[in-house]
Amino acid sequence: MKERKIILAEREIPRKWYNVMADMPNPGSPPLHPGTKQPIGPADLAPLFPMPIIEQEVSTQRWIDIPEEVLDVLSLWRPTPLFRAYNLEKAIGTPAKIFYKYEGVAPSGSHKPNTAVPQAYYNKISGTKRIATETGAGQWGSALSFACAKFGLECTVYMVKVSFQQKPYRRIMMETYGSKVMASPTNTTNSGRKILEQNPDSTGSLGIAISEAVEDAATHDDTKYSLGSVLNHVLLHQTVIGLETKKQLEMVGEKADVLIGACGGGSNLGGLVLPFVPDKLGGQKIRMVAVEPSACPTLTRGVYAYDFGDTVGLAPLVKMYTLGSQFMPAGIHAGGLRYHGDSPLISQLVHEKMIEAVAFSQLDTFEAATLFAKTEGIIPAPESAHAIKGAIEEGKRCSRENKSETIVFNLSGHGYFDLSAYDDFTNRELVDLKLSEDELKRTLAALPQI
Amino acid sequence: MKERKIILAEREIPRKWYNVMADMPNPGSPPLHPGTKQPIGPADLAPLFPMPIIEQEVSTQRWIDIPEEVLDVLSLWRPTPLFRAYNLEKAIGTPAKIFYKYEGVAPSGSHKPNTAVPQAYYNKISGTKRIATETGAGQWGSALSFACAKFGLECTVYMVKVSFQQKPYRRIMMETYGSKVMASPTNTTNSGRKILEQNPDSTGSLGIAISEAVEDAATHDDTKYSLGSVLNHVLLHQTVIGLETKKQLEMVGEKADVLIGACGGGSNLGGLVLPFVPDKLGGQKIRMVAVEPSACPTLTRGVYAYDFGDTVGLAPLVKMYTLGSQFMPAGIHAGGLRYHGDSPLISQLVHEKMIEAVAFSQLDTFEAATLFAKTEGIIPAPESAHAIKGAIEEGKRCSRENKSETIVFNLSGHGYFDLSAYDDFTNRELVDLKLSEDELKRTLAALPQI
Repeated sequence: MKERKIILAEREIPRKWYNVMADMPNPGSPPLHPGTKQPIGPADLAPLFPMPIIEQEVSTQRWIDIPEEVLDVLSLWRPTPLFRAYNLEKAIGTPAKIFYKYEGVAPSGSHKPNTAVPQAYYNKISGTKRIATETGAGQWGSALSFACAKFGLECTVYMVKVSFQQKPYRRIMMETYGSKVMASPTNTTNSGRKILEQNPDSTGSLGIAISEAVEDAATHDDTKYSLGSVLNHVLLHQTVIGLETKKQLEMVGEKADVLIGACGGGSNLGGLVLPFVPDKLGGQKIRMVAVEPSACPTLTRGVYAYDFGDTVGLAPLVKMYTLGSQFMPAGIHAGGLRYHGDSPLISQLVHEKMIEAVAFSQLDTFEAATLFAKTEGIIPAPESAHAIKGAIEEGKRCSRENKSETIVFNLSGHGYFDLSAYDDFTNRELVDLKLSEDELKRTLAALPQI
Repeated sequence: MKERKIILAEREIPRKWYNVMADMPNPGSPPLHPGTKQPIGPADLAPLFPMPIIEQEVSTQRWIDIPEEVLDVLSLWRPTPLFRAYNLEKAIGTPAKIFYKYEGVAPSGSHKPNTAVPQAYYNKISGTKRIATETGAGQWGSALSFACAKFGLECTVYMVKVSFQQKPYRRIMMETYGSKVMASPTNTTNSGRKILEQNPDSTGSLGIAISEAVEDAATHDDTKYSLGSVLNHVLLHQTVIGLETKKQLEMVGEKADVLIGACGGGSNLGGLVLPFVPDKLGGQKIRMVAVEPSACPTLTRGVYAYDFGDTVGLAPLVKMYTLGSQFMPAGIHAGGLRYHGDSPLISQLVHEKMIEAVAFSQLDTFEAATLFAKTEGIIPAPESAHAIKGAIEEGKRCSRENKSETIVFNLSGHGYFDLSAYDDFTNRELVDLKLSEDELKRTLAALPQI
């Protein structure tokens, strides 16, 4: 029997997060105030985030202690297993060794609780009573709902209306943890009302839901805002993934040649690859690959520029790869990858050629996901299926080049709540949705002038 | 940070199943032919099962080797973690130590693949081309679908019609693994047609679906039948649960005072408790508790008698606790516990006072499940919620008696596919369904005369 799982003991959970800000090759571009377009300071962020989070957002300290109270909750499922994908390797006939880090063992089924838990904790100790957030497919909303339940915080989730209607299970999960879930756009915020006036039938978008949650937090003293991706502190919290992976690879005497993650806002990709940045800067040959959907090809077809993080323009302007804040991505099932922008940190690393990016079509990713389910057993989230497709393509390249490289990808979550997508795939009702040149030109023309 | 998880290395997966038949205090009552009512032999079972399975069904050998090919697939998720439920203990304020063995980490989300994999394997090496089975809530059907995908077997699943309609995700999961799923009663079998003639609007039952699958296997040379609970070989395969649990308790210097499992057909309960039977026979004080729904109270209100395993009367007569094979359980969400009978082995152990039984109402189990989700994070399957409720009650008893006992329960699966039930619970739309005395009298009156 081959050993498939590389398991760390609970005492080997990382005790510190790794902060790539300490090692970035070049200084980053500061976030700008959406109104004044001047660099923002901690005071500008204070209505939205508690101070410990703001400090982490701007910190350049290389290692940051994980509080005991956070470790205590993370230990419900961490460390997560690293699997050797023997069956997948065999199915595609590659000489490569393929490993996957499985984050779906978390209570809400994805990597999102890695940051939801510390965010809830820092809010709790800072006196926050309620957290407002947005969610698309529902991975983030259910992670934050779980975390708020753990620390006794109220939680209000603005859920993109089309998901609210199509994914009742995710809504129920959030409500089971005790959250209040509303279909966005709502008529409870100015942002929501503004959208509904323009289009009463709006089915919402992540950008709109962000506007609503930000407004809710900014207009209520006891309420803060929480974001599940994009920001520096979110990526910081996710580095437990890569730190564990590194230890696990060492345990079996392996070094990664290629690291792969799906990329929407960048949190699961960043979580896996950032802890390997110092190794790469130190001369180790490691490729880092971001995989995105061809329907929302931010890194592969967007521009590197200042843009709003939300649709209404309440969030700070950040420098990132973007398709334009007015971009409305096609309704692919990988809802977590339907975001017009990307993490500034990931964007900078792509711009500086530390990270590569590649895009695949929806059909290609579901074909990869189904092969994975039949060989490795786990039915992956549509988002994670992008990383699987990336790993399979790298495996096939190793076959062509006759190389036995070590490929590691992040299986960021399971697909138990996305089975209707698999139904469409099985029944050949799934379509490929590609962004047209004309549409891209239109949305990029609306970029703010900085 | 307290250590919550007791984790075994992959090389510590049990290499042998434990067969309680070697240690039963008294000889059991043999299964009888449904027509002749005479004890059946291997030849009677040969149309339904491959010979290695039949041998295991009647074996009295204490330890049976697990084939390498089976271990290889089980290692995709086994050994499973044993958790110390610190948060739950705190929430109910008990001096008891509560542990739970979590089987939901398996690809299909429950303990069922533990037997689906060896059953598929033995069929494969015996030349079977296709396996026919039934499924209620879908846990068993998806486990067998996964196992058949692993060994390249075709799989036909007769899914109880009401579940087929209400639980599309489970159907899709089976289809994603490559199975053919049909809503039972179908018009493709005599059993199904007979039911539909009597009641064209029948929404089906497990007993009917069993009749259809058995008929399918019996009437096709290349097809065998597979059952996910009740039978001796199924419980044998599930003993990996208890064998691992034993090792894990030893690792932390604990001995179980109480072992608890939900009980429908008996497979997850048996898997946990049977390996502890020799300890109990050897004088160790261990209580074993079967928890069932008050809507289908087989062990607590049924009779110990010979009865049919299915509704139509094609399956052998076995001696078990039963509510009568014509009993139609109320539509509780714990579909896996809606079975009129019970495992003959478990029934005998209950009859001989080795195992206790207790019943709880649907509302009580969902209240327990929601508390568990908020404290331990995992949203449990409605079936497993019965074990949680049992553990909470034992914990409260320990509070009253001021005892620090060690309580271990089997968290047999997650509830990701059962969230609509949680929605009903949150919205106070869930009702208690109790079996009336009159209905019980009626169904017991129809027991066969042996």
